[in-house]
Amino acid sequence: MPTLSVFVDVPLAQKLEGSFLKSYKQDEDPKKMFLAYRVCMTDDGHPWISPVVQKIRLQIAQDPSLNFEYMPVMGMKSFIHASLELLLGKYSEAIVENRAGGMHTVGSSGAFQLGARFLRTWHPDAQIIYITSLQKELHGYIFQDMGFMVYEYSFWDPKKLCMDPGLLLNVVEQAWPGSVLVIGSIGEYDLTQSQWAKLTSTMKRKKIFPFFDIPSQGLSTGDLDKDTRILRSFVSRGFEFFCSQSLSKNFGIYDEGVGNLVVVALNNQHLLCVLSQLMNFAQTLWLNPPTTGARIITSILCNPAMLGEWKYSLKEVVENIMLIKEKVKEKLRLLATPGNWDHITAQRGTHSYLGLNFQQVEYLVKKKHIYIPKNSRINFTCINADNIDYITQSINEAVLSTKDSESK
Amino acid sequence: MPTLSVFVDVPLAQKLEGSFLKSYKQDEDPKKMFLAYRVCMTDDGHPWISPVVQKIRLQIAQDPSLNFEYMPVMGMKSFIHASLELLLGKYSEAIVENRAGGMHTVGSSGAFQLGARFLRTWHPDAQIIYITSLQKELHGYIFQDMGFMVYEYSFWDPKKLCMDPGLLLNVVEQAWPGSVLVIGSIGEYDLTQSQWAKLTSTMKRKKIFPFFDIPSQGLSTGDLDKDTRILRSFVSRGFEFFCSQSLSKNFGIYDEGVGNLVVVALNNQHLLCVLSQLMNFAQTLWLNPPTTGARIITSILCNPAMLGEWKYSLKEVVENIMLIKEKVKEKLRLLATPGNWDHITAQRGTHSYLGLNFQQVEYLVKKKHIYIPKNSRINFTCINADNIDYITQSINEAVLSTKDSESK
Repeated sequence: MPTLSVFVDVPLAQKLEGSFLKSYKQDEDPKKMFLAYRVCMTDDGHPWISPVVQKIRLQIAQDPSLNFEYMPVMGMKSFIHASLELLLGKYSEAIVENRAGGMHTVGSSGAFQLGARFLRTWHPDAQIIYITSLQKELHGYIFQDMGFMVYEYSFWDPKKLCMDPGLLLNVVEQAWPGSVLVIGSIGEYDLTQSQWAKLTSTMKRKKIFPFFDIPSQGLSTGDLDKDTRILRSFVSRGFEFFCSQSLSKNFGIYDEGVGNLVVVALNNQHLLCVLSQLMNFAQTLWLNPPTTGARIITSILCNPAMLGEWKYSLKEVVENIMLIKEKVKEKLRLLATPGNWDHITAQRGTHSYLGLNFQQVEYLVKKKHIYIPKNSRINFTCINADNIDYITQSINEAVLSTKDSESK
Repeated sequence: MPTLSVFVDVPLAQKLEGSFLKSYKQDEDPKKMFLAYRVCMTDDGHPWISPVVQKIRLQIAQDPSLNFEYMPVMGMKSFIHASLELLLGKYSEAIVENRAGGMHTVGSSGAFQLGARFLRTWHPDAQIIYITSLQKELHGYIFQDMGFMVYEYSFWDPKKLCMDPGLLLNVVEQAWPGSVLVIGSIGEYDLTQSQWAKLTSTMKRKKIFPFFDIPSQGLSTGDLDKDTRILRSFVSRGFEFFCSQSLSKNFGIYDEGVGNLVVVALNNQHLLCVLSQLMNFAQTLWLNPPTTGARIITSILCNPAMLGEWKYSLKEVVENIMLIKEKVKEKLRLLATPGNWDHITAQRGTHSYLGLNFQQVEYLVKKKHIYIPKNSRINFTCINADNIDYITQSINEAVLSTKDSESK
């Protein structure tokens, strides 16, 4: 009897990501380097881990009182509570009024998956999603998969080499009423008071639902509260929203995928209804979220001494990032690289735009084996004392070479 | 400006599970007990952990060479490989011929979620799912959510008080061509050679796709190979299939939700295509599966001494289960409880049918505060020296009380 296969017509899937990293891995040049890692790197080129995490890991492993029973569908309650306070502030009106809650999720993808399912079922008006190009690959596909129309936006102006809040205002002005605006990298939005007032009043008028993405609180300015200032202002302006809060990156436990889908509602009754529906979705997605990461984080957040150590480690990382950026700028100045490079130090966080054009990026990848994404947004923590000279000299060459071709 | 809420029409979700556990928790009777926990319990009423797990946890916490970078979408490769060998046997033809693979998932729900998505997209003929009533609540809803028709089946015969392979054969005989048969609790299928031949030839003829569910390999007979004998016979009979392999329960790391969606295809090319599509789905579901559980398991499976310790711990658990079952049967005999109770010891695994009817279960729950599911399938590891007398006496009372009402 010939066996007919169910799998016979299944084609090889197109890779969504990773091909860039793959090219890097296949490159045999000894000078090759990859400047687009998602994780924060240390000076010696290893993924950063907050030192306090190692201590907690050991404590957990030695604690005989712990049991490892299934979590409830909602996840670890103490984790949700502690993360919520971290995000909104301990005395947030939403917390005090019992109208903020969360669902412990499998990383930020899990949080977006859960939130998107909810919106598709319970907010049928929201058929259109606006998302920054930077998040498109990671989270945009989640919405696309579910049948949402996904529009990309960017508020990086590649000509003026700066973040332009006007671009965000434009998106909101032109957005469809009832759509969803995914707001990521909020550490980068420097809006004036009047821009703020305009943004929020337009959003309210058009019933645009905010879906925040906070992937690394504390790693933008080094100050946990400052990094969510904008989100908190949405709370005080009476918005209801979702927020994907990811806590893997700012603790350095990347492979644990610890997320929290935060819900801020207008009252406690709404909140309970929304959470109950989210639980139904989570039940079929993963039933119980894995716990190790959440346990590590909760132990740190609930212990003042450890919390202090963690905060200090975040500050160190951010200071180091600023130092690297300053050095890159200074080296380019000493090399007399054409152009102004102030935008490098004007940006915050681990990942920032170098401000190179496509040809220059091509030059770096092809000729210098330095792997940089097309938009030239690199992870500055990948630069260290060992590679900074090669990198800045290469940037200099790239700029000069394209300058030549321009003047030809 | 009055704020209109997106959440205003969202109703409170009906609870799918947990209400039974909730009733138990709300019960204030000091004698109350819950015999339906999903996890394996120790003699002193705590969730069982294989002792070797604690050692590994400590080793991991002390290992300075580990980094905690994001996993690839597929998950931890060494974990997938080791789990696959555990499931199919090291020298399985499917492994040797490079046509068996896996995707590291967030527990068994994650594996079913992933597999169901694949089938919906790439096997549109499969609109109907047959699943045992026992798995309906946990996994049936995943298929239902995606628009599959879900039929329940059971091969426990409540009259004859035994597992009846004939019931399974009936399901397959009557099943729709091209449908999916979820095969769980495979330790319980005692089919004769001719029943086997009939089952598999009917499945092949009707192109019924098998989706196995192996939630606790080793906890049925105490022998890892014996527990997947049936699955392995599907490999040698040239089937292609999916299998949700969950490894949380047999290591006692319940809250890590460690799963593997195993794919057995007819050739390597099919396998690669299927895995590539599964990766696309995983990317939007959780992007990277959490790692701690997989790391613990891989360390154990790849170290012969630790593997030995783990196997020994499984045997101990299974021996203990048999001992509890024997004791329950013996106590019922001494109490002269009407009926034959051999079915208790004839069943394998942690969870087995007591063989009580609905009235008797009602009696135990309402009058004796012993929480037992309606189908009377309990977790025998919840019974220990402290509660066995109360439980058996209560069963005796329940049986006698309904006997009286029957004879009236």
